[in-house]
Amino acid sequence: MFKNYFIGVDLGGTKIATGIVDNEGNLLATVKVPTQAEDGWEAVSRRMGDTIDEVLIKANVKASDVGAIGVCAPGALDIPNGIVLSSPNLKWHNVPLKKIIEDRFHIPTYFDNDANVAGLGENRFGAGIGSKHMLYMTVSTGIGGGIIVDGQIYHGSSFGAGEFGHITIDMNGPLCGCGNYGCVEAIASGPAIARNAKEKLADHPESLLNQYTTITAKEVSEAANKGDAYAKEVIETAGRYIGATLAGLINTFNPDLIVIGGGVSNMGELIFKPIRDEVQKRALGSFVANLKIVPAKLGGEVGVMGAIALAQSAGNV
Amino acid sequence: MFKNYFIGVDLGGTKIATGIVDNEGNLLATVKVPTQAEDGWEAVSRRMGDTIDEVLIKANVKASDVGAIGVCAPGALDIPNGIVLSSPNLKWHNVPLKKIIEDRFHIPTYFDNDANVAGLGENRFGAGIGSKHMLYMTVSTGIGGGIIVDGQIYHGSSFGAGEFGHITIDMNGPLCGCGNYGCVEAIASGPAIARNAKEKLADHPESLLNQYTTITAKEVSEAANKGDAYAKEVIETAGRYIGATLAGLINTFNPDLIVIGGGVSNMGELIFKPIRDEVQKRALGSFVANLKIVPAKLGGEVGVMGAIALAQSAGNV
Repeated sequence: MFKNYFIGVDLGGTKIATGIVDNEGNLLATVKVPTQAEDGWEAVSRRMGDTIDEVLIKANVKASDVGAIGVCAPGALDIPNGIVLSSPNLKWHNVPLKKIIEDRFHIPTYFDNDANVAGLGENRFGAGIGSKHMLYMTVSTGIGGGIIVDGQIYHGSSFGAGEFGHITIDMNGPLCGCGNYGCVEAIASGPAIARNAKEKLADHPESLLNQYTTITAKEVSEAANKGDAYAKEVIETAGRYIGATLAGLINTFNPDLIVIGGGVSNMGELIFKPIRDEVQKRALGSFVANLKIVPAKLGGEVGVMGAIALAQSAGNV
Repeated sequence: MFKNYFIGVDLGGTKIATGIVDNEGNLLATVKVPTQAEDGWEAVSRRMGDTIDEVLIKANVKASDVGAIGVCAPGALDIPNGIVLSSPNLKWHNVPLKKIIEDRFHIPTYFDNDANVAGLGENRFGAGIGSKHMLYMTVSTGIGGGIIVDGQIYHGSSFGAGEFGHITIDMNGPLCGCGNYGCVEAIASGPAIARNAKEKLADHPESLLNQYTTITAKEVSEAANKGDAYAKEVIETAGRYIGATLAGLINTFNPDLIVIGGGVSNMGELIFKPIRDEVQKRALGSFVANLKIVPAKLGGEVGVMGAIALAQSAGNV
């Protein structure tokens, strides 16, 4: 029997966002509630289920007419079995979330991680509509990625593909959280941008950054937007490393589109220009001729829209 | 109608090798002839066709029982249309080889480039049997690659995917033939190994390499095998850069197997050890747990076996 509706749930450390679409992709209802992770996994997973009930009621849809539920979850996941192995944000260990949701709703439920779901969401509903071979890179506290091939997430042999942040771009670069040296995440993520800015700030007494007591990537971006040359240079350097990493990915994957999301992507041309310049310089000519590099479009809705896309694509297979 | 046989043709600058298999993959007959590229494209493509006739006769198979022909061709190709756009080895420009073969034999004919075909051949018949997500890297005059996903070549948006040699591994590294700086090909290919060896040879009067008048990667390998410390170090450095590049690819693709072919891979543990050490250091733990890095197996037969695999996979679609 053909099922007409799909539900997506974005489970985050602070909020749960849930939405439902019809088979034409029209968003019929959404619900947002605080996660209240301190209540523990049983309460939180019950709350997740309650948001599903709520969107069903708001949209006036029966559970039996829903083809699939997609869930975007944080932390380390067992993707095919839908188990949250460990999530520092939620303080969860080995929570069989897929089973919990399926036992309650009797609807096939599919899981994936933040970056994969965001990539799929942008591909289906955002900046990547129409792209067949798309790479999604998110640059914020860390650098992550999602690989979309023929409109589906590419997972690799143990469901780990897309760890763009841990590509070595400088063999002798700084130590990364993963234990390796010179990962692009250790050089160009938000915290790395802040660290780079602070490192040589003493040599730049003219910089506006000296006026801040706390410096994160946000302050660096703010100062750069006010015309601060040093802050601009710090962001440009990060952009160049991101661009060189993307050039390698382009020469490897030959994608037709790169979508960049995450907080750092909000810096706009300050970071997109050096990214594009470096890609132009380092990617093979025929590969960049028809390639676009664009910012993500879905913003805070990317989790729920991506989860809906996950439900649609799994539910239609 | 089910067709029982598949033919592969490896068109090289010096020889044409052609083979035929039955539907169980048994090699029934092979033919090898010199290319004699100086005779021009019409003569060479006729000669290719003649080798197809020959294997049909040797194997006692009718052309009408052949499901597909696969062709591995050198140079820049229009893969879907089977046109050799430009081949420095053959001195060809815009030769519509697919049409020529199909017009003569009325058998669907499929084309692909050396590295992709080699990757597919190793996956189907060589070191990669049983691997679902495999990366093939060839290290010789250049560094190339083939990406195998679910037993098929991944081509990307304009059939260019797999250019592993042009991944930037050192932003400030040496100039590459592609115009970029710091590509792994400019640091660790055969010619780069020879160049690196020569660059600091004057500082190593004890090195056996001083005894050679010409130094290529072969002589560096020879000296290293005789215990020359300097030659060993040069090869180890190349291996480390290859390993760091592969680690990035592993973190991106999460493959279950890496197969390394090409002349440089014949250096054995001299180069495989630093490659594996660097991968171990730089790839994410869960990604290397079940990953193997092995030398290619098919040697000089990789072109014809890969072309047969191409015919099989295209012919079975």
